[in-house]
Amino acid sequence: MTGTRRAMKEGWMIDRREFNRRLVAAAAGIASGTARMRFAGAAPDYSINPGRLRGNLEALAQIGRTPEGGVSRVAWTAADVAGRQWVVDKLLKPMGLEMRIDPAGSIFGRRPGRNSGLPPILFGSHIDTVTNGGRFDGALGSLAGIEALQTISERKIETNRPLECVIWSNEEGEHYGRGLFGSRALVGYFEPGEMDSKDDRGQHIRDAVRGVGGDPARLEEARKKPGDYAAYLELHIEQGGVLDKAGIEIGVVEGIVGIVRYQVQIAGSANHAGTTPMPERHDALVAAAELVLAVREETVREPGRQVGTVGKLSVDPGVTNVIPGKVSLTIEQRDLSLEKVEAIFKRISARAQEIDRKWGTRTEITQTSVHQPALSTPWVRETIAREAVAAGLSVLQMPSGAGHDAQMMARLAPMGMIFVPSVGGISHAPKELTRWEDAANGCEVLYRSVIAIDREA
Amino acid sequence: MTGTRRAMKEGWMIDRREFNRRLVAAAAGIASGTARMRFAGAAPDYSINPGRLRGNLEALAQIGRTPEGGVSRVAWTAADVAGRQWVVDKLLKPMGLEMRIDPAGSIFGRRPGRNSGLPPILFGSHIDTVTNGGRFDGALGSLAGIEALQTISERKIETNRPLECVIWSNEEGEHYGRGLFGSRALVGYFEPGEMDSKDDRGQHIRDAVRGVGGDPARLEEARKKPGDYAAYLELHIEQGGVLDKAGIEIGVVEGIVGIVRYQVQIAGSANHAGTTPMPERHDALVAAAELVLAVREETVREPGRQVGTVGKLSVDPGVTNVIPGKVSLTIEQRDLSLEKVEAIFKRISARAQEIDRKWGTRTEITQTSVHQPALSTPWVRETIAREAVAAGLSVLQMPSGAGHDAQMMARLAPMGMIFVPSVGGISHAPKELTRWEDAANGCEVLYRSVIAIDREA
Repeated sequence: MTGTRRAMKEGWMIDRREFNRRLVAAAAGIASGTARMRFAGAAPDYSINPGRLRGNLEALAQIGRTPEGGVSRVAWTAADVAGRQWVVDKLLKPMGLEMRIDPAGSIFGRRPGRNSGLPPILFGSHIDTVTNGGRFDGALGSLAGIEALQTISERKIETNRPLECVIWSNEEGEHYGRGLFGSRALVGYFEPGEMDSKDDRGQHIRDAVRGVGGDPARLEEARKKPGDYAAYLELHIEQGGVLDKAGIEIGVVEGIVGIVRYQVQIAGSANHAGTTPMPERHDALVAAAELVLAVREETVREPGRQVGTVGKLSVDPGVTNVIPGKVSLTIEQRDLSLEKVEAIFKRISARAQEIDRKWGTRTEITQTSVHQPALSTPWVRETIAREAVAAGLSVLQMPSGAGHDAQMMARLAPMGMIFVPSVGGISHAPKELTRWEDAANGCEVLYRSVIAIDREA
Repeated sequence: MTGTRRAMKEGWMIDRREFNRRLVAAAAGIASGTARMRFAGAAPDYSINPGRLRGNLEALAQIGRTPEGGVSRVAWTAADVAGRQWVVDKLLKPMGLEMRIDPAGSIFGRRPGRNSGLPPILFGSHIDTVTNGGRFDGALGSLAGIEALQTISERKIETNRPLECVIWSNEEGEHYGRGLFGSRALVGYFEPGEMDSKDDRGQHIRDAVRGVGGDPARLEEARKKPGDYAAYLELHIEQGGVLDKAGIEIGVVEGIVGIVRYQVQIAGSANHAGTTPMPERHDALVAAAELVLAVREETVREPGRQVGTVGKLSVDPGVTNVIPGKVSLTIEQRDLSLEKVEAIFKRISARAQEIDRKWGTRTEITQTSVHQPALSTPWVRETIAREAVAAGLSVLQMPSGAGHDAQMMARLAPMGMIFVPSVGGISHAPKELTRWEDAANGCEVLYRSVIAIDREA
């Protein structure tokens, strides 16, 4: 009896219309912050081994552990190399997988299927971290992918297609400044000059890639074509507080938001703070303050999950007794719809002009980057949601506000992501925490989804 | 015929009530930014020598001249020593004045009066500058004081009392961080530990004072008692744009504003700018933006010349994709009335509490310094105003928003200050400019006021 059939029999199964209705209702509840909708269901009857998953996560967290209790396993550093080695030696090799490290340094472990000519299903995440990051970001999805494969092997489940787990190379991009390195290699997306960069210790990026077993001279060979994979799945911690606050166990990711960034320069007139009367001032910081508030106001003016942030702001000359003459600041907008953030930006821009007229300042706004959103594939999303519900877990359809390797893979294959709650929404910090049962829930949903996709794709 | 009598005869002289009425009218015109009132009158028939004053100012500006056309004659550096030496050798010594350098390093030049037992009239300013400052700040008042004395000598005017010109030591305080050093020595006002400080090159302040001929071991001997001087006068550029904008030639300073400074810490929650929904944010920069605007709004809510400035603001962590967790900023308030700025601060503080409630932030405001205002002496102010009007010059009574040695001297003697226009209000910058005729006007008013005070005090 398949999971789906069992769920139907036990009354968990709901039709797609009802499912979407509930998702919408749940999402609306979260968005308004009032209702907390949970899908009825018992704790999952795990197929995967929660204790083993936890043990592996705890063991990996020791590699690069910081005094604050965080993890520093920055990509391609000694700690990352040690972490990768541990995964290969302690987990992948004993499972007898067909292993390879691609030219970008990503680690792939393959389990053959009944029909090895079919495109495999790929799933995984990364194990590199930011400096003093947490134990779950990336590590959970990586080790859960391995746990799912191990469960499938132990249960002697014969799949139609090959299954591949992956540990992506340099997802965070703290080293060399650009993340998603491993997944970008699969779509051949590198910035001009990227492969000539050096880090602040003078180490060349090519040597760093070689240091993890990659081969920068053959990066082109890492590329894949659309159709090479049947699907890509990634389990990840949410890194935000939506699931935790709503008490929902599984997030079904609608997509990874697009990100648009702007650099803003506001020029006023620096002047003596004692001798310049208030009506004579062209205070760049007063203008900037109005702009910071305008960014927020215009972002929240319409319903939705779009966000707008001024994260960086500096004042020149920045002296107690001098009226600020210049302010530079950043604006970052994120949403699944670039059209939406563009419309919001137009209003922000109009506000900036009003502000300039009011204070006699000159504001220049330059777009510095645009990252397209990457939507997950509806049928993969539905499979994940259905399997989560079948496992008795509550689900919420939500955007991913953070970037993930899945956004690159969306260019090559049907893509889906599974989120589990981050306690308090904390991430990239030692206090990053996902409860063990939530980690196991996510792994279970990944496992079930892989099997379901293998049967249905 | 005295200037006053001549002015009366020619119809320039006005009685005090009429004078004050006009001052008030002129001041009101400035404050509202609508009327520009000028007192009718011809260009002054200068007693002083405008060409010589200009020549001396131009010569002194060569000492410490910067490539940008400014002047770097930071106190007690080689350039300052050279400037002082030039003043002593080229101006003071040839005039045959009784010269001395006091233990703080201030230079005094004395011309005896008919009655050398009477307290002298003191006048002057400083010749040290900020880094890459202007040619007029301090230099004008210093060289105008010498010009006034030289005119008196050339005209063989016998005064009742001794006259003393002064070049104060380290007015700007860019070196060793605390200004008004020379004038503070006269009132014995030093900060604890001040005489043990070293500059960033490791030079001890005592060695620096010795380097300009001072004697730090005998600083106490520089102190003066109230009554030791009949009056103190200082001519200075306005350093603001009020006179220039209003087209008024002479500012009669009502007093030097008090300055109150606060350090503000705003604590929110740093969080991922992509994964944290807008309603869940505790953005310290959004709160800070509202506070910056509140400082301005509360400052201008009531009429008057009070100013309030946020000059310094820094964001932590200050990264494009992280919601600001902490902001620190400064608030500076200035006015002739500390009661007024305290009342304004109470409202700012209440606004900060509202802001905290709105955003879930925690704002802590700490008062870091209070400088009392120093009012000029009404009869000195009136003498200056009368002499300016008598010279055919337009006058405006106004506060000094910047600090001056006169604020220390106000503790010891009747004090008055004369302002002349700064083009565009620019100061502490290479573009600082006071027109030569305005410089000469100020010098003429200083000269006339010294004589008038000698006759009347």
